Amino acid sequence: MRTLVRDLPKNTDKTVTIQGWLHKKRLLGGLNFITVRDRSGVVQSLIEDKIEIEKLRGMQIGTVVEFAGKVVADERAPGGVELHDVKVAVVSPVTDEPPIEIDKPISHKPEHLETLFENRVLGLRNLQEQKIFKVRAALTQALREYLVENEFIEIDTPKLIAEATEGGAELFELEYFGQHAYLAQSPQFYKQIMVGVFERVFEINHAYRAEPSATTRHVSELTMLDIEMGFVKDHQEVLDTIGGTVKHTLTKVYESYADELKSLQAPELKLADDIPAFTIAEIHERYTKATKTDTTKEKDLIPDEERFICDYARKELGSDLVYATDFPLEAAKFYHKVDAVKGVTKWADLLFRGIEIATCPLRENAYEQMIKQMTDAGLDVDHPGFKYYLQAFKYGLPVHGGCGLGVDRLVQKTIGLNNVKEAILFPRDIHRLTP
Amino acid sequence: MRTLVRDLPKNTDKTVTIQGWLHKKRLLGGLNFITVRDRSGVVQSLIEDKIEIEKLRGMQIGTVVEFAGKVVADERAPGGVELHDVKVAVVSPVTDEPPIEIDKPISHKPEHLETLFENRVLGLRNLQEQKIFKVRAALTQALREYLVENEFIEIDTPKLIAEATEGGAELFELEYFGQHAYLAQSPQFYKQIMVGVFERVFEINHAYRAEPSATTRHVSELTMLDIEMGFVKDHQEVLDTIGGTVKHTLTKVYESYADELKSLQAPELKLADDIPAFTIAEIHERYTKATKTDTTKEKDLIPDEERFICDYARKELGSDLVYATDFPLEAAKFYHKVDAVKGVTKWADLLFRGIEIATCPLRENAYEQMIKQMTDAGLDVDHPGFKYYLQAFKYGLPVHGGCGLGVDRLVQKTIGLNNVKEAILFPRDIHRLTP
Repeated sequence: MRTLVRDLPKNTDKTVTIQGWLHKKRLLGGLNFITVRDRSGVVQSLIEDKIEIEKLRGMQIGTVVEFAGKVVADERAPGGVELHDVKVAVVSPVTDEPPIEIDKPISHKPEHLETLFENRVLGLRNLQEQKIFKVRAALTQALREYLVENEFIEIDTPKLIAEATEGGAELFELEYFGQHAYLAQSPQFYKQIMVGVFERVFEINHAYRAEPSATTRHVSELTMLDIEMGFVKDHQEVLDTIGGTVKHTLTKVYESYADELKSLQAPELKLADDIPAFTIAEIHERYTKATKTDTTKEKDLIPDEERFICDYARKELGSDLVYATDFPLEAAKFYHKVDAVKGVTKWADLLFRGIEIATCPLRENAYEQMIKQMTDAGLDVDHPGFKYYLQAFKYGLPVHGGCGLGVDRLVQKTIGLNNVKEAILFPRDIHRLTP
Repeated sequence: MRTLVRDLPKNTDKTVTIQGWLHKKRLLGGLNFITVRDRSGVVQSLIEDKIEIEKLRGMQIGTVVEFAGKVVADERAPGGVELHDVKVAVVSPVTDEPPIEIDKPISHKPEHLETLFENRVLGLRNLQEQKIFKVRAALTQALREYLVENEFIEIDTPKLIAEATEGGAELFELEYFGQHAYLAQSPQFYKQIMVGVFERVFEINHAYRAEPSATTRHVSELTMLDIEMGFVKDHQEVLDTIGGTVKHTLTKVYESYADELKSLQAPELKLADDIPAFTIAEIHERYTKATKTDTTKEKDLIPDEERFICDYARKELGSDLVYATDFPLEAAKFYHKVDAVKGVTKWADLLFRGIEIATCPLRENAYEQMIKQMTDAGLDVDHPGFKYYLQAFKYGLPVHGGCGLGVDRLVQKTIGLNNVKEAILFPRDIHRLTP
């Protein structure tokens, strides 16, 4: 019977069997400390018996072992217990020294990221790296949980699509049984279609961007949470739902993974009852005033403005989340709802700790207006790529809106990582297709 | 304030406002029955007032409406209530007659599937079609729930990969910033790597197969549940975990979605305490005896044998699930654990109602043996596509196994659909890339 490391304190003075990986060795002559890792943690074993320690001669970190021994309480030991009088069994030997030390902190400095990813297979065995991806799993689980509780139905839409409706510059193209296909940049058309079916839908899945830019913000294969909801009163209801989802998720994960987040040196979580909101124009104005850099002609926020307004919201308003609202009309895409009177687009960005994590627009839902906006945008409404999408509008869609939220960025900023790639197990960018 | 249709019975004799889609119209002169659909159900409204009914003149099914009216209990009405004294507001008009009738059963006959998918955008608004995808969402939710409870960590691995390690015949290929990339057929390599990190992992995500075959079983973009677990005692522990996951999921969904499954005419669920298991050789023998068709030379089960053994297990053993175990050595892939003494591969298929839904192998985990099996299989162990995968073995992997389970097939067979595509919102096959 295997005992997990985390259950050892319950078994003090008993003899148990643990199974795991050799995680750390300290051979001090007669006194040998061997740390074993399993999925629940690490424990130190004290091996004095020469015959037993001999079995580990030449065995490198990663060796799969089974140790039978007595659980001894020792407050100096990590976890409060040690294993003594150990009988060693090598289950799967590792005889080559690994290329990296997994029991030491692994550098995430920008200049070391290539090394980080090149050694990812082993580096992920490091306890700190593991925490990043436990937090990631918990974040997506909490997102799902909140949405399901709020009557959103999870959908599963294809990533292979037939048409590059908005121009194909940033689309990956492939050959598909003699036709051309593309990898979807977003499930937007499908989720809007599904509003006509279920009113409230979401999807967590991959999206593909053939952006030839190498930044700390971009990857070519990303994970998105897409939400779409119909029969909303107004844009604010959409923003409240998205904000509620993210607040629930952060609160829950900060509670359940408090130790992990602390040990990863994640920033303290600051959430206000209402997410502060500033119009794009206001942010430009404040930023221009503060920095003497004139951004008032920009259609979107520049990255430094995202940091600027987030710093302000955190320091002055106690909120890590902030909405940038009322994008200028010039920024509107054909599917946005515009407020012609105020001269703005009903589109907000949700910013989190210095970066946009979600675009949250209200959609144009009236068929005739949609046709007009597409025509005005120079799009061919008879393009086959719009055929099914436009059916949904022609045969009735309510007022609706939603968001595309970058899950990778949410993980990155929750933990406080510099580069979005650090939040992805095996990231893909312009230079990297492996591991 | 909007009241959802399902809350109407709680509001008898009150005046409420509902919002939804015009779902059905019966105009009988002075007596007009209008059915409205929202995300929670449908309700019939009786409209006698000429001014109100006039507002709906020319309005087609799909029109987005708001009805204010009095909730009247009427046991003859579906749902037990009707809306009377209705004030009609047309929120978003539909003036063209839709190409299909969404309030009537939609044919799923093989010869009508093209029509089904061509009209998918509107057809999904049919209440029966909706149920399929509510059950689908519930099935994936229950799978996740069980695995998370059993300490599996959800991982998220890339679908863009650099190498076609096992031959590229069934891989989609694309251009990736001047390199070649492929769409992953399975996350197998990644999940095995992740066993070295978390012991127990799972992923629900898309997989891509460029199989040029048009059958009721195949699609080119499928959704897979991949499970992998380390430190198992034996193959049986893997099979018990997978079986437990599927049994929990089916039991839970048959309870929570009893009405939907009944109305979809899903078969009654039959589960035995232990999933019956037969070796491939036994199944060949039984089948050959029963049908006089000799299958004893086959490496795998033929489709008719899958139906045959499932029929037997359901009728004679009270189980919709059955394991076909002990694949012959000739069927082994390089990553399988083989039992040289018994001369079989430690690989089982999980069959459900006549079809294989999951392949469940134990893996070879010893590095040296792995290298030998790859070499014996004629593979180049120095191929860059194996580099990171083999690192995981070289630096220590425990005994492990898992499964790749077809979520689309699980949905299909849970409900009793003929074709796997009927279980997918927007299926992709050799002929279909739309909607």
